[in-house]
Amino acid sequence: MNMPVSPLAPTYWPVLPPITGVRLGCVEAGIKYKGRKDLTVIEFAECANIAGVFTQSMCPSAPVDWCKSILAKGKVRCIIVNSGNANAFTGTKGHEAVNQTTAAATKVFGYHPQEVFLASTGVIGEPMDASEFSLFLEKAKSVADEDGWDEAARAIMTTDTYHKVSTRQFSIDNKTYNLNGIAKGSGMIAPDMATMLSFLVTDLPIASTVLQHELSRAITPTFNAITVDSDTSTSDTVLLASTNSTDKNLIEDDKDQRLSHFRTALAEVLHELAMLVVRDGEGASKHIEICVDGAATSPSAKKIALSIANSPLVKTAIAGQDANWGRIVMAVGKAGEPADRDQLSIWFGDVRVALNGERDPEYSEEAVSKIMQSDFIPIKVSLGIGNGKATVWTCDLTHQYIEINADYRS
Amino acid sequence: MNMPVSPLAPTYWPVLPPITGVRLGCVEAGIKYKGRKDLTVIEFAECANIAGVFTQSMCPSAPVDWCKSILAKGKVRCIIVNSGNANAFTGTKGHEAVNQTTAAATKVFGYHPQEVFLASTGVIGEPMDASEFSLFLEKAKSVADEDGWDEAARAIMTTDTYHKVSTRQFSIDNKTYNLNGIAKGSGMIAPDMATMLSFLVTDLPIASTVLQHELSRAITPTFNAITVDSDTSTSDTVLLASTNSTDKNLIEDDKDQRLSHFRTALAEVLHELAMLVVRDGEGASKHIEICVDGAATSPSAKKIALSIANSPLVKTAIAGQDANWGRIVMAVGKAGEPADRDQLSIWFGDVRVALNGERDPEYSEEAVSKIMQSDFIPIKVSLGIGNGKATVWTCDLTHQYIEINADYRS
Repeated sequence: MNMPVSPLAPTYWPVLPPITGVRLGCVEAGIKYKGRKDLTVIEFAECANIAGVFTQSMCPSAPVDWCKSILAKGKVRCIIVNSGNANAFTGTKGHEAVNQTTAAATKVFGYHPQEVFLASTGVIGEPMDASEFSLFLEKAKSVADEDGWDEAARAIMTTDTYHKVSTRQFSIDNKTYNLNGIAKGSGMIAPDMATMLSFLVTDLPIASTVLQHELSRAITPTFNAITVDSDTSTSDTVLLASTNSTDKNLIEDDKDQRLSHFRTALAEVLHELAMLVVRDGEGASKHIEICVDGAATSPSAKKIALSIANSPLVKTAIAGQDANWGRIVMAVGKAGEPADRDQLSIWFGDVRVALNGERDPEYSEEAVSKIMQSDFIPIKVSLGIGNGKATVWTCDLTHQYIEINADYRS
Repeated sequence: MNMPVSPLAPTYWPVLPPITGVRLGCVEAGIKYKGRKDLTVIEFAECANIAGVFTQSMCPSAPVDWCKSILAKGKVRCIIVNSGNANAFTGTKGHEAVNQTTAAATKVFGYHPQEVFLASTGVIGEPMDASEFSLFLEKAKSVADEDGWDEAARAIMTTDTYHKVSTRQFSIDNKTYNLNGIAKGSGMIAPDMATMLSFLVTDLPIASTVLQHELSRAITPTFNAITVDSDTSTSDTVLLASTNSTDKNLIEDDKDQRLSHFRTALAEVLHELAMLVVRDGEGASKHIEICVDGAATSPSAKKIALSIANSPLVKTAIAGQDANWGRIVMAVGKAGEPADRDQLSIWFGDVRVALNGERDPEYSEEAVSKIMQSDFIPIKVSLGIGNGKATVWTCDLTHQYIEINADYRS
């Protein structure tokens, strides 16, 4: 199925600069797609430090199981990513495919299996044939290049309608460092050709324990604050690598001042990539931001924000350009979190539509209607009972979503 | 918006027999609709016992607040139901409308306000004008009739595409008793013209505490086991009244043997009405039954079943007649409940499609495809880790749902 490019696609893609010692190679392995590259290797000239976060699904894919099992060592020599098959719900065959892939990496590159991270995205429940991977990894090795970021961002796509890249440069002690990131994800952020994957590399030398701490903290308000359809993939994977791991200036303490610029860069890159994923949400015609404040606690605010973001009635109303705040009240109510109906205020953009549990008598239908016609819809909900706050992002629910997910076979 | 009648509508509607002393009157109050009856009074010649269950929304409507506040007394003289306006999120005006309505009932019928139950369904956030309700209640009183069940079932409809009735007769000591029930609900079971309301009356004399116990127990596997779009109304209300409250044979003990036939009748009527609601789910083209067994506990089984039932990816796959068990695995995984991927088996109808965490090598695509073409899709998921089980019902997610909920205004 060839989908038209999302109307929310970016009009500009930054060029990701090379990061010394990091080469990316993509090849056609014919896993599912014909005539496009679907197997990507991110290779590190020297052993790099690595951190990761993964799907919270109770039924994760075989590659997720594998990555989790080797993460504690915190070392990486290569990341191998295939699109077209998620190698999820494939039983013992799934683990065999993992073993074949790491064995192929050992054979071709000489790496220890426990330094080989894997990610797979695509159809689930189909056994994945990795028997020819040595051959494909040989090819990938021969074409790998420090300028391969853009091509890799394309090769990891499944139902994505555009590729997703982000980069930041930052200076510490007059030296410039880089943080590059690529991501894929569209529906579901789901199985069956969706799943969210992201790979980031920095040349700032950071110990893996510190790197993990930074990634875990930065993921909460970014990738863990987006939802397309409330469905959680078996395969979500975010890996962050830091090169120069033998540098004498390795950052080993999370109070190290040099982390502050990196933190900003990481927050920005993850935010940009997360927004690119939401804006490529299956069938998306609106990018929606939901800010909840005044909740009992911040986790409570996030639960309420997600309840609004995942409500089919809220999402369809916005698709219909209707500032239907009644459905937002409903979604607040169903979240099961503390809320006082008569303290609730709701804004679309800068227009307050509800105040103290009633329609705001002042609000202009014309002003709100203008906001609803835009492709970015900011919604603010003030609960007025505490100091908890959270922001999440989502997209609307349209006919196109049904087409992508129902009509492909009927 | 006039929607076509659901393709899952019944082909036969039972006639509800009169219940002595219970009269139903419907009038045109012009609350929102033109040319149809929208105000219903269910009047009890003698004070009846009553039980109720309500939405779990943290932002309930004013009538729900009211009913909850008087339920402990357990007595009812009339139930007043309006469609077209939910009187929800209407602040102090909402409570004023409630007070006006009960005052009108006192004036017209002479009932104590605390014996007057109210339910409203329709648009939320619009103040409801109850100033003329005395007049309309006068009219309703004059037309009220013991044969008014069918008309009442129609008058409480909003986006419903057909009216919903169910009845059972049962014998105790050679005497026949009745249980009549009517319901409305379609989307959301949601605000904005959806909400689930149901009213039941039996002439078996049962004390209100026992009645409440029976209703609370019977609701769990019926109305509390259905979902159309995961959205919870501000107004869901189920009321069960028992007439003959001064009968010397009043059932006052929940171990009373005479309850056993009533229990069966109540379970059946609630099940029938719940199924009628799901089959009238907004845009429904498939009625889906999800049985989960082998879970750690039964509450865990229900959480997993609801995770499957509410997954947009599962619902769209079924709309597309695709036996996409990968999406079911995903929904099991995202429920956050104990599950072992490699123990999981999944059936569509009697065809097992997945076994021990892999595609069942035996399954016939042809057999499963035949099941997917039917309008009733039974899905069974065996987790294989415990004895917990639960069944929930839902419908699919179609273009029609988007039309109903997004296109009405764009």
